[in-house]
Amino acid sequence: MAKIPYKIYLSEDEIPRYWFNMKAVMKELPDPILNPATFEPCTTEELEQVFCKELVEQELNTTDQFIEIPQELLDFYRMYRPSPLVRAYCLEKLLDTPAEIYYKFEGTNTSGSHKLNSAAAQVYYAKKQGLTHLTTETGAGQWGTALAMACAYFDIDLTVYMVKVSAQQKPYRKAVIETYGGKVIPSPSDTTEAGRRILAEYPDTGGSLGCAISEALETAVKTDNCKYVLGSVLDHVLLHQTIIGEETRIACEKYDIRPDMIIGCIGGGSNFGGLIAPFVSEKIKGRSDVRIIGVEPASCPSMTRGKYAYDYGDTGKTSPLLKMYTLGAGYIPSPSHSGGLRFHGMSPIVSKLYHDGYIEARAVEQTSVFEAATMFARSEGTLPAPESAHALRAAIDEALRCRETGEKKTILFGLTGTGFFDMTAYMSYNEGSMVDNIPTDKDLEKGFAGLPQAPKEALLK
Amino acid sequence: MAKIPYKIYLSEDEIPRYWFNMKAVMKELPDPILNPATFEPCTTEELEQVFCKELVEQELNTTDQFIEIPQELLDFYRMYRPSPLVRAYCLEKLLDTPAEIYYKFEGTNTSGSHKLNSAAAQVYYAKKQGLTHLTTETGAGQWGTALAMACAYFDIDLTVYMVKVSAQQKPYRKAVIETYGGKVIPSPSDTTEAGRRILAEYPDTGGSLGCAISEALETAVKTDNCKYVLGSVLDHVLLHQTIIGEETRIACEKYDIRPDMIIGCIGGGSNFGGLIAPFVSEKIKGRSDVRIIGVEPASCPSMTRGKYAYDYGDTGKTSPLLKMYTLGAGYIPSPSHSGGLRFHGMSPIVSKLYHDGYIEARAVEQTSVFEAATMFARSEGTLPAPESAHALRAAIDEALRCRETGEKKTILFGLTGTGFFDMTAYMSYNEGSMVDNIPTDKDLEKGFAGLPQAPKEALLK
Repeated sequence: MAKIPYKIYLSEDEIPRYWFNMKAVMKELPDPILNPATFEPCTTEELEQVFCKELVEQELNTTDQFIEIPQELLDFYRMYRPSPLVRAYCLEKLLDTPAEIYYKFEGTNTSGSHKLNSAAAQVYYAKKQGLTHLTTETGAGQWGTALAMACAYFDIDLTVYMVKVSAQQKPYRKAVIETYGGKVIPSPSDTTEAGRRILAEYPDTGGSLGCAISEALETAVKTDNCKYVLGSVLDHVLLHQTIIGEETRIACEKYDIRPDMIIGCIGGGSNFGGLIAPFVSEKIKGRSDVRIIGVEPASCPSMTRGKYAYDYGDTGKTSPLLKMYTLGAGYIPSPSHSGGLRFHGMSPIVSKLYHDGYIEARAVEQTSVFEAATMFARSEGTLPAPESAHALRAAIDEALRCRETGEKKTILFGLTGTGFFDMTAYMSYNEGSMVDNIPTDKDLEKGFAGLPQAPKEALLK
Repeated sequence: MAKIPYKIYLSEDEIPRYWFNMKAVMKELPDPILNPATFEPCTTEELEQVFCKELVEQELNTTDQFIEIPQELLDFYRMYRPSPLVRAYCLEKLLDTPAEIYYKFEGTNTSGSHKLNSAAAQVYYAKKQGLTHLTTETGAGQWGTALAMACAYFDIDLTVYMVKVSAQQKPYRKAVIETYGGKVIPSPSDTTEAGRRILAEYPDTGGSLGCAISEALETAVKTDNCKYVLGSVLDHVLLHQTIIGEETRIACEKYDIRPDMIIGCIGGGSNFGGLIAPFVSEKIKGRSDVRIIGVEPASCPSMTRGKYAYDYGDTGKTSPLLKMYTLGAGYIPSPSHSGGLRFHGMSPIVSKLYHDGYIEARAVEQTSVFEAATMFARSEGTLPAPESAHALRAAIDEALRCRETGEKKTILFGLTGTGFFDMTAYMSYNEGSMVDNIPTDKDLEKGFAGLPQAPKEALLK
């Protein structure tokens, strides 16, 4: 076996031609999406009112393990994929650890993250269906940027509801989206009923992903030839992100890298679910005992402190109901600097895997996250996104544990993106003014109190 | 020959182990650096008062065609090199041109540009010499960021004088440099005599690279165990950037790509000189007739409208004299959005190649540059730095010419970096408020009037 290079780049011919459908390998399926009015499983027709046809088909597909990636989309992926799997030689040296550390780096495209993987897919299917307009929400701005890039490429109009606190923290993110031709509206806004309702109740709110989703959904339904696209949480988004895991698996096999643990940050869960898909699949089949760890912010601890229950995906409580770990759709997380992780819920697939014991979850505080981010930047060069640095924090902690025990473990984590548009956050950390906003149990109770009520038999389905 | 992939990545083993010393292949050497007091060629000892020993040796080396890259530095380069040579398939399609377009993309590291190639080299030699502190200037901020990254890696203190207008336009650049541990001072400042003198004469100036150089030079001389490092212009900086050209040559040979023209942006000239080195060398030897085109901003047209004369490198007129195309050290270019190209002079090597007819020069206006940048972003995905987009503009113009003539030319340009920290500029373009600040002949005369006076025989040397 040749020495492992700093960066493992697969060739373009090695880009996976199939997405990996987790639901085809899970022993038990996640509970179905419910119609909030009837508490009955959503039908294809109901979902197609909001989402593109082909995406609904993917959302509901529980049988095909591999779903083909269309050629036009592979052509788009070739502009920035395969993404590198990097050996963090310099971080290992800094930490003086016997562990081997690898990271799959999704930040090499202009959107600065993995979001482009699903953005391109969703815009491609929208175009194929003859749509002319899309709406979405964005938190940190990475999803909005990714979607704007894909919309520019495939020539579709785009309206982005951007979480207000993110729009304020990251004025230049807005400018990037606009450079790619997208229209940006800070959320909550007065352009929708959902936004006006939230503003009336919380006039000073910095917004949340949940609020922005409500507004984007409403606009999509009210606009001709327009659908809504979502950057995380849903099964079809996670499906598109499995290209990350598949590339990682191929690279690991090629260089005989055998991870003892795989670590990812979790906000809506799609990047994490995508990264771990082929690895957790082996675990489900009893062929692997790799540890799989999702890392979330202590300020928005949906997995570590949330409830596994049916809940709305949006703060406005208009979306279908998802069975997931949630803090309650009414929970508005404090304005941390990891906008992409400020979501009250979690991917139903990731939630189910956690519930069934295949994966672990861990919450970390943002000051310790930025400490890790700065260490990484100064040793490995790359400036990580705050979201990605949650996974990095856990990876560093595990590597330091190896230093104590002397174990030579192989740690692989997902570095989902770059922090070039997060300098306000870094400035706050550099100045020592960053705080950790950890909710009290009482804060969380408020969110749980708002969980949807339904006949017991419906919720037990 | 296999189909050319979107991105050609060489393997880490193919990273050149030698820099390419242009002066060893030039038929006539550039005129020597002069001491401004005596108008005699600078001695090694004089240069070592300001620069590191090994860099002075490289600066004055006119005989060795290949200069070995130290192993410790190759280890650093491996973190982000080889950089990709990209086939701009999507741009070609958008332009509907028969031309093939390639770009060597140096923006895949956090500094966002090629600057890291020389930053790492200079910091490495400083460390080796036992220095503990470095000073420098930065315009667009890419050089300052690159140097901060290298200083963090090799553990050396850094003070960066940042052109004031850039510091204002790019507050987050400052934050990045600080995240890597660098100290940033907007220039002109009151921390140096040179700064105070310039402020007294032009209290409202936005500064220039020339001003910032004066301040950094002064601080280096007055601080213990400290030297000055420069991000462009000088021969040793250009030398380090030849890794770009060497990688490009190797990739072209591997895939049988034969450029009809090679295009780069020119500010101080180092990225351009580095990119073209092996190609212009073949031209000098009479074995190639490739066209080589340097593209500069119409607002700072040192090659297309400057004089070929001895001049200071800095506005404070304290540096050694360089024989180069210059607008005069006293010329302060209007505050355009391409901070990295706002330099009154030009690399002596590039100047000499231009003077001897091996290369062409062209000036472009910034509104047309941003038009090109936006076209590129929307088709190829990547958001270019304004500086890099000067080369892109010319490449697009050449590709459009091919569409008219039907010629299937091969165009290769250097995309030196990304524009993530240039969003103020893009916002100004998006809003339609961007202007082209083209100097009048009278404006230029003022700069020329300040060219250093010396006995005629000295200047003719």
